[in-house]
Amino acid sequence: MSTTKSDHIPRATIERLSVYLQVLENMQREGIDVISSGPLAEACDVNASQIRKDLTYFGEFGVRGVGYHVPALIQSIAKSLGVDHEWNCVLIGVGNLGKALLGHREFAKRGFHIVGAFDCDPFKIGEEFSGLEVVCTRRLKERVADLDVRIGIITTPPERAQRAANHLVEAGIRGILNYAPARITVPEKVHVEYVDFFHHLYSLTFNISTRSS
Amino acid sequence: MSTTKSDHIPRATIERLSVYLQVLENMQREGIDVISSGPLAEACDVNASQIRKDLTYFGEFGVRGVGYHVPALIQSIAKSLGVDHEWNCVLIGVGNLGKALLGHREFAKRGFHIVGAFDCDPFKIGEEFSGLEVVCTRRLKERVADLDVRIGIITTPPERAQRAANHLVEAGIRGILNYAPARITVPEKVHVEYVDFFHHLYSLTFNISTRSS
Repeated sequence: MSTTKSDHIPRATIERLSVYLQVLENMQREGIDVISSGPLAEACDVNASQIRKDLTYFGEFGVRGVGYHVPALIQSIAKSLGVDHEWNCVLIGVGNLGKALLGHREFAKRGFHIVGAFDCDPFKIGEEFSGLEVVCTRRLKERVADLDVRIGIITTPPERAQRAANHLVEAGIRGILNYAPARITVPEKVHVEYVDFFHHLYSLTFNISTRSS
Repeated sequence: MSTTKSDHIPRATIERLSVYLQVLENMQREGIDVISSGPLAEACDVNASQIRKDLTYFGEFGVRGVGYHVPALIQSIAKSLGVDHEWNCVLIGVGNLGKALLGHREFAKRGFHIVGAFDCDPFKIGEEFSGLEVVCTRRLKERVADLDVRIGIITTPPERAQRAANHLVEAGIRGILNYAPARITVPEKVHVEYVDFFHHLYSLTFNISTRSS
C-alpha cells in the first residue's frame, strides 16, 4: 500500500494491474463487493496464483476463505498506479484521431482531463472541438506552464511526431502517450508509451496466419 | 524465412518485430539500403545482441561487416508477420473513435482494408463515413460471408463489446482488435488483441508518480 513498495513493482505486473483494475471496476458497477481469487483470475484471463502473487504488492487484501474486498482493492491499485487523483493532459495533432480522443468520454471518466489541444495547421488553429479551442503548437510551453499538465498525447502524422515530442519535452512534460506510428527520442527522465495499433494488428495476422497453416 | 520456423517465434519477439518493421520502413523511405545492427538497434531502442538474436528467425540476412539489406529484411519480417498480403477488416461501433479509424489512412497504407462498418443504432444505420455505409450489426454474418474478412475491430462502448465479439465469432472472424475498455470472452480459436489506452496511461502515471517521489 505504501508508495515505497510500488517502486519495485515490475513492468509486467503494472500491465496486469491495469487489467485487474478494469475488471474490478466492472465488478463494482455490477454490485459485487467481495471476490475470491479464482473468479477474479478467470475474469482477468490470468491464473489464480499469478493474481495472488501480484496482489501481495498491495498488502493483505485477501481474507482467507472469503476473498478480496473489491472497493478497497480498487482504491489500493489505483493509488499504486497513481490514478487515485486527476491528471491534466494536452494533445498535439487535431486530426481524425485527435478529435476522436478529445471527444472520448472514457478519458475524463477515468480522471484524465485533456485541457489543451494543439496543432500547427493554421486552418485548424482557433477552431473548437469538444469545447477546446485549437492553439498553435508554438504556444504549448506557455500554456502548459499555466495549467498543471504532466502528460502529453501525440496524435500527429508519423513524420511530425518527433517535433511534437520536442515541444512537449521543452514544456517540461514528464510522460508522453504516442499514437503516431513512429518511434520518438526523448531524454531519459521522460517516459513514453506507444499506442501502436499496427503492433496489435501484426500480432493478429501472425496468429491467424500461423494457426491456419 | 519459412513459415514453419515462424510458428515458434515467441510473443515478445513478435512485438519487437513490429517495431523493427516500422523503423526499417522509415529507413527505406529515407533511402537507406543497408543498415548494421548497431544503428538499427539504437533506432529501435533495443540492444544490438537482442536484435541479432531476433533476426536469426529470418535466416541469414546480415552480411558480416556490412549489415542488413533493408528491403529484403522488411519483406521477410512482413512475410513472417503475415502482412506481405492485404487483409480485409470490419468495424463494429461507429462512434467518434470508430469514425476516426474509418478515416485513418495508415490502415489502408499498411494493407488493412476496412470493408464494412456496423452499428446497432438506427440513427447511424444508412449513414456514410469515409465511403462506407453503416450497416445493422445483425447483418454482419451475411456481409462477412460475401467479403473475405478475417479481422474484426470493436470500437463500441465497453458494455456492448461482448455482444459485438459474439457477432464477430458467429460470423467466423478469426482475429479481433478490441478498442473498447472491456475484457471479452471468445472461443480459443479466435485471437484477441486489446488496444487499451488506459493501460498505457496507467504505465505513464505509475512512472511519473514513482520517479517524482
